[in-house]
Amino acid sequence: MNGLPVAEVLRIVRTALAEDLGDPARDVTSIATIPQDQVSTGDLVARADGVVAGLPVAAMVFDVTSEASAIFAAVVEDGARVARGDVLATVTGPTRALLAAERTALNLLCRMSGVATHTRAWADRLAGTKATVLDTRKTTPGLRVLEKYAVRAGGGTNKRMGLYDVAMVKDNHAVAAGGVVEAYRRVRSTFPDVPVQVEVTTVDEAVAVVGAGATFLLCDNMSPDLLRDVVAAVQGRAELEATGGLTLDVAAEYAATGVDFLSVGALTHSSPILDIAFDLNPAPAA
Amino acid sequence: MNGLPVAEVLRIVRTALAEDLGDPARDVTSIATIPQDQVSTGDLVARADGVVAGLPVAAMVFDVTSEASAIFAAVVEDGARVARGDVLATVTGPTRALLAAERTALNLLCRMSGVATHTRAWADRLAGTKATVLDTRKTTPGLRVLEKYAVRAGGGTNKRMGLYDVAMVKDNHAVAAGGVVEAYRRVRSTFPDVPVQVEVTTVDEAVAVVGAGATFLLCDNMSPDLLRDVVAAVQGRAELEATGGLTLDVAAEYAATGVDFLSVGALTHSSPILDIAFDLNPAPAA
Amino acid sequence: MNGLPVAEVLRIVRTALAEDLGDPARDVTSIATIPQDQVSTGDLVARADGVVAGLPVAAMVFDVTSEASAIFAAVVEDGARVARGDVLATVTGPTRALLAAERTALNLLCRMSGVATHTRAWADRLAGTKATVLDTRKTTPGLRVLEKYAVRAGGGTNKRMGLYDVAMVKDNHAVAAGGVVEAYRRVRSTFPDVPVQVEVTTVDEAVAVVGAGATFLLCDNMSPDLLRDVVAAVQGRAELEATGGLTLDVAAEYAATGVDFLSVGALTHSSPILDIAFDLNPAPAA
Amino acid sequence: MNGLPVAEVLRIVRTALAEDLGDPARDVTSIATIPQDQVSTGDLVARADGVVAGLPVAAMVFDVTSEASAIFAAVVEDGARVARGDVLATVTGPTRALLAAERTALNLLCRMSGVATHTRAWADRLAGTKATVLDTRKTTPGLRVLEKYAVRAGGGTNKRMGLYDVAMVKDNHAVAAGGVVEAYRRVRSTFPDVPVQVEVTTVDEAVAVVGAGATFLLCDNMSPDLLRDVVAAVQGRAELEATGGLTLDVAAEYAATGVDFLSVGALTHSSPILDIAFDLNPAPAA
Amino acid sequence: MNGLPVAEVLRIVRTALAEDLGDPARDVTSIATIPQDQVSTGDLVARADGVVAGLPVAAMVFDVTSEASAIFAAVVEDGARVARGDVLATVTGPTRALLAAERTALNLLCRMSGVATHTRAWADRLAGTKATVLDTRKTTPGLRVLEKYAVRAGGGTNKRMGLYDVAMVKDNHAVAAGGVVEAYRRVRSTFPDVPVQVEVTTVDEAVAVVGAGATFLLCDNMSPDLLRDVVAAVQGRAELEATGGLTLDVAAEYAATGVDFLSVGALTHSSPILDIAFDLNPAPAA
Amino acid sequence: MNGLPVAEVLRIVRTALAEDLGDPARDVTSIATIPQDQVSTGDLVARADGVVAGLPVAAMVFDVTSEASAIFAAVVEDGARVARGDVLATVTGPTRALLAAERTALNLLCRMSGVATHTRAWADRLAGTKATVLDTRKTTPGLRVLEKYAVRAGGGTNKRMGLYDVAMVKDNHAVAAGGVVEAYRRVRSTFPDVPVQVEVTTVDEAVAVVGAGATFLLCDNMSPDLLRDVVAAVQGRAELEATGGLTLDVAAEYAATGVDFLSVGALTHSSPILDIAFDLNPAPAA
Repeated sequence: MNGLPVAEVLRIVRTALAEDLGDPARDVTSIATIPQDQVSTGDLVARADGVVAGLPVAAMVFDVTSEASAIFAAVVEDGARVARGDVLATVTGPTRALLAAERTALNLLCRMSGVATHTRAWADRLAGTKATVLDTRKTTPGLRVLEKYAVRAGGGTNKRMGLYDVAMVKDNHAVAAGGVVEAYRRVRSTFPDVPVQVEVTTVDEAVAVVGAGATFLLCDNMSPDLLRDVVAAVQGRAELEATGGLTLDVAAEYAATGVDFLSVGALTHSSPILDIAFDLNPAPAA
Repeated sequence: MNGLPVAEVLRIVRTALAEDLGDPARDVTSIATIPQDQVSTGDLVARADGVVAGLPVAAMVFDVTSEASAIFAAVVEDGARVARGDVLATVTGPTRALLAAERTALNLLCRMSGVATHTRAWADRLAGTKATVLDTRKTTPGLRVLEKYAVRAGGGTNKRMGLYDVAMVKDNHAVAAGGVVEAYRRVRSTFPDVPVQVEVTTVDEAVAVVGAGATFLLCDNMSPDLLRDVVAAVQGRAELEATGGLTLDVAAEYAATGVDFLSVGALTHSSPILDIAFDLNPAPAA
Repeated sequence: MNGLPVAEVLRIVRTALAEDLGDPARDVTSIATIPQDQVSTGDLVARADGVVAGLPVAAMVFDVTSEASAIFAAVVEDGARVARGDVLATVTGPTRALLAAERTALNLLCRMSGVATHTRAWADRLAGTKATVLDTRKTTPGLRVLEKYAVRAGGGTNKRMGLYDVAMVKDNHAVAAGGVVEAYRRVRSTFPDVPVQVEVTTVDEAVAVVGAGATFLLCDNMSPDLLRDVVAAVQGRAELEATGGLTLDVAAEYAATGVDFLSVGALTHSSPILDIAFDLNPAPAA
Repeated sequence: MNGLPVAEVLRIVRTALAEDLGDPARDVTSIATIPQDQVSTGDLVARADGVVAGLPVAAMVFDVTSEASAIFAAVVEDGARVARGDVLATVTGPTRALLAAERTALNLLCRMSGVATHTRAWADRLAGTKATVLDTRKTTPGLRVLEKYAVRAGGGTNKRMGLYDVAMVKDNHAVAAGGVVEAYRRVRSTFPDVPVQVEVTTVDEAVAVVGAGATFLLCDNMSPDLLRDVVAAVQGRAELEATGGLTLDVAAEYAATGVDFLSVGALTHSSPILDIAFDLNPAPAA
Repeated sequence: MNGLPVAEVLRIVRTALAEDLGDPARDVTSIATIPQDQVSTGDLVARADGVVAGLPVAAMVFDVTSEASAIFAAVVEDGARVARGDVLATVTGPTRALLAAERTALNLLCRMSGVATHTRAWADRLAGTKATVLDTRKTTPGLRVLEKYAVRAGGGTNKRMGLYDVAMVKDNHAVAAGGVVEAYRRVRSTFPDVPVQVEVTTVDEAVAVVGAGATFLLCDNMSPDLLRDVVAAVQGRAELEATGGLTLDVAAEYAATGVDFLSVGALTHSSPILDIAFDLNPAPAA
Repeated sequence: MNGLPVAEVLRIVRTALAEDLGDPARDVTSIATIPQDQVSTGDLVARADGVVAGLPVAAMVFDVTSEASAIFAAVVEDGARVARGDVLATVTGPTRALLAAERTALNLLCRMSGVATHTRAWADRLAGTKATVLDTRKTTPGLRVLEKYAVRAGGGTNKRMGLYDVAMVKDNHAVAAGGVVEAYRRVRSTFPDVPVQVEVTTVDEAVAVVGAGATFLLCDNMSPDLLRDVVAAVQGRAELEATGGLTLDVAAEYAATGVDFLSVGALTHSSPILDIAFDLNPAPAA
């Protein structure tokens, strides 16, 4: 599924359908009015300009409600820029299955496309600079794999972290270990295969941890001036991530400091959806 | 848990923790730097003004990571208006457990509080009118019970629907059944215990379905003038819900038409989070 | 997934991988010898002539072991006739993930292709007659959806039955109900939406149950002569399925009786596999 | 359960029943025609000569559909040679439960007995030689524990391997490690408690890996002459397994080379079933 | 498994083992001291006189920890009266597996045997009267199937009820329905296939509900005199169950009233265990 | 939940409800007689003097059956001494949900309160001595977390052990390792982070293992005199637990020996329940 882990996506799809269809699953309106064997065709249509992400996920929703009998034909691919009115995909299958899938498919697709669209705005703003936009762990609970995929579809980069696959040394760890350098060393020796990022607050601290071997630093809430000093002091021996309340308005200014990454929690915690509709061709009365 | 179904909330909490902690669960940074038996205290603090929702959910996150050994003391209750700087709750427990819970607890709490804050703005705007604000099925997949709870905490009303517990007759059903009245009747007779809402597009249609017994109508994308005509024609025999791209700016104008409900998908699909932080008191080095 | 229900296929894939990789999952040989970051490419190659089925299933195996990082490029589609030496698909991904997937992917693909190849032989033999070949419930426990899909890929037809979706009245039901006609009527009235097939043993019985409304008859272990009599007596008012120890040698003779279906349990319970190999391009030493 | 892991067998039984009975489970024909309280007795009867395997598994199927109320009395034990017409077991219980179990019990029993029968033919052919027949990982996905048990019931030996419990060094591992001896050493030191088998292609390679400590070699696709040379060179310091397209016709010739094991994938991937029927004594009409 | 539903028993066994062995499962003491391949034999021995129940359940515990490699040979059958010192069963298998199973097997076996022993005392006391002892729904949460089986092994009778399979009309239902007779009628017509028991408090009420068709009455906390009056009034048209704080001392007196059943919650909620030990023959040092 | 792990408690609650309500869940009597929208209030009332434990567990039962719509107001807290007639909690919610929860809530609450009451008797008896009462692994299968919590509520101490979190060297381990001191050393070095308790049978053995570093000894079935000798010999270098058929009558005598803990299996395997009832206020007829 193109970089989407199928087991996790299926879990999400089934959970979302269960919320909407209850247990046992039933769409009472359709059961009462739509003949069981009626087949229809519908289009997923953009209602606003943006970047699409999540078409294989939407396809899986229709797949599950139709027990694999619906045919989902994508017109564009994830990552495509689309304009209001564009048809993104066409679906043909049992009408009841299409209606049972509609809201869940849209809830997923609109949200993922919203993240991709927001990320694309950042990527466009940073085009031509050295910096790329990075996501965070501030994701919607339960949807992390989808949102990180959507960030990639929008031109962003995943820091790819939970607490388990990348270490991040912050103030509490430094205090507990008796200093940020010592904290770095403990993580490094305990988990030699895990990348370690270290949060620094001053130029001196940055120089010290890089001297101890750190190759990835987090600069939280630093001013552009301070960032520039850190960049100068580190001399390319470590990658630098700036974070902390960054907005599109100041993106260029921060990118100009020479940091490698700007991380933006709002990509995943506060993006508005991209409005997409499902236009079903009505079928005649039974 | 005050209106939150514990099994569903636990499923959400465990899924969210699994995303962040991996399998087997581990926070590599804390394992390497924080002593296993270190205990700390931290505060959940509002970073902006708003309405809080989700404190019992946050409590459960700390409960799970600490295997019930953390003590969570809420200072305010869900639904409270809070100001930047207010302490919402204090948590005491094993430092590793607090750090493992932090991001997941915040992701849930900030999101739920964002929905409550947004809903509160609508409820305040409608105060003094007959109308109340209603949520929709445009919820975050997997988090519906939390978001509907947050809507209530913010002063809104749940339409309480999936496809299974309230019927909604829309155009496709009407076409399939040979008319909206006939569709209403089929649903009514097939599922006598399920409430039925009917979407209408004209005054005549509204009168016809109310004549057939319908007591709950959906008026999608109607102008205030048309809504006023429907209100007049229905004469209180059915509740009326207006929907379709409503914004706070026009809330009062639509409420003045006399409808009972304004439904707003953006409450759940596009609310920004309420910024809340977890300030952990650092413990001395081991 | 082209007619394959994704949830069921994923269950099968995960169960099969768990058998081979243990819990926790580990391929001890590869862990000890293959670098974690080594990437390779391999080909799925036919070792005999036949019909291929199961490429999307094999793709899912590689998808799961590689956490969606492997790229699976099919060269042919399910249902294609392939010759010894043909490349069916190419897979690129982490070597460890490819080796962990190899045996499970082949076990599934070879078995499904074996069923498709066997079915194709029947379909070819029946080409030009009215009859088509049908599968049965004699499937491999746990793999029914895959085998029924493979039958379709080989040109056969699914009777699409478990005990739940199609009724089949046999001798025990007839005895319990006091006659085959009465048994048919009871099923018909108890489950009006479920198709009913009735097993008959004589021409008179066939005429009686068709008179009672039955439209689908099972003729078990009848001689071609007797089948011809039943065909003549039924006069097209019901579909007829012949079954009972049918072999390719007599396929044409039985098809010539005018029955609609020949059902063959051996399609799914005794097909030999189609031999397919995974040729991995070796990577240089680390 | 005599060497059958109960949890795994139960998983298989429930999955197989779910396929056949749907969700919620129902046998529509029996519900409509068989009284709920009717009790019957039936016999499992061999329809061909062979070796039986799987009676405890069949018993569990009846146990599950009858909620432990059926009585299953085995007449023979797994591993017994049976002749066409022999009664293998008698089952008494609610008729509906017996009919709901019938097909699933037979699908499992016939398949397992097919494997045992096929294995028995190999074991008989090798009787009097030093060699025994071995199974492989080419098993039916989901049924490995049953098939390996059936191999034992037929007189064969399990290599008892997934990728997790026995290491097997093949060409890809040798290339990655810089030679087969080095690959062997890496596995040996990384997993000291796991048996290691090494694939060799020449006499020199065999001598080298045995010199490095290997005690179990795989000889793939070697001619009898070459096998004899390897046997002579190894001088009993390691066990030897010959494999690669072995058939019953050449079994004696290969056994005569002095190898310890002949492994045969077809035992589990291409055995035809042993035909077994369930003859239910009809009960009078209700 | 002789009337024990295997799926439910397996659930209980796995839950109990998980409690004791943790996740991942490990017995730290044995891992550190007992060689992996050591095999031992142990005896389950009664430490007090009583009635045994649960040997197949204990066998399953050893089966699961040994992955089906332990051999469990029962010496007596469930329901047998045993004396202090009697060997109930002998188990041979890997020492680690035996030690991992020991406490869980005993916890289940001692508890079930305690219920059987307690029930046996009641059954003995009622021998020669018309009355039999009945269990209730006051069972240990999670162990109902085991405890009801143990009641049967001790000579008692299961009322076989959850809230789903037998209706019981009590005061709340009567009040809600407007009278006990009306309540009985509503249950009878809503669930025609479900047995209905009705609680009565007076002779008149008993006569009225029997007149309405009830065939099973519950007499809660009635004196022997009142019970005798009810028995006389009902004249055998309904079965009568007496309940309410019954003890062995008054068993005979209550049985003499002519009621059919005495139900005793203490059988399952307050039986002491029967003490049983597992005597493992020590193996020599490794 | 005050020291109760929510996930485990929820598992217990759902399992217990499933036993009582069947699948699909239904209380046939209430469905037939109680209106769906009827709301009632009931009290949990002690029927005997004792110590209460399990109110949050009972609350969860009502929470689950009412889908979080019932309001549970505790009057006392777990650990409180209560007298016959005391109201422990009041519950308001849908009548059907209250009746569906009643028996399961009581089964859990009565059992937990029984354990707490029994433990309280021990704790009172030991008040003023150095010794505290300890529980064992002889718990009800499936309910260990609840029973250990109840022991704490009654004033006892948890040894907090499964086989995974505390090692206990007994005779079999000593024999296998070639002596109790060697066994202790092996456990100590294999699992340095796990506490180790060692069973001793003589003063010499106690001295030897304490000399080897052991700090926690188990004295099984020792006389008070022998215990006193061990206490004297160990001189406070290790904690001592006496066990083996201890009863309340001899509690003071054993405590006087100077041991630190008396462990009592009967706390969890043979406590009678504390009788508690649910008095529901009847609602008028519908």
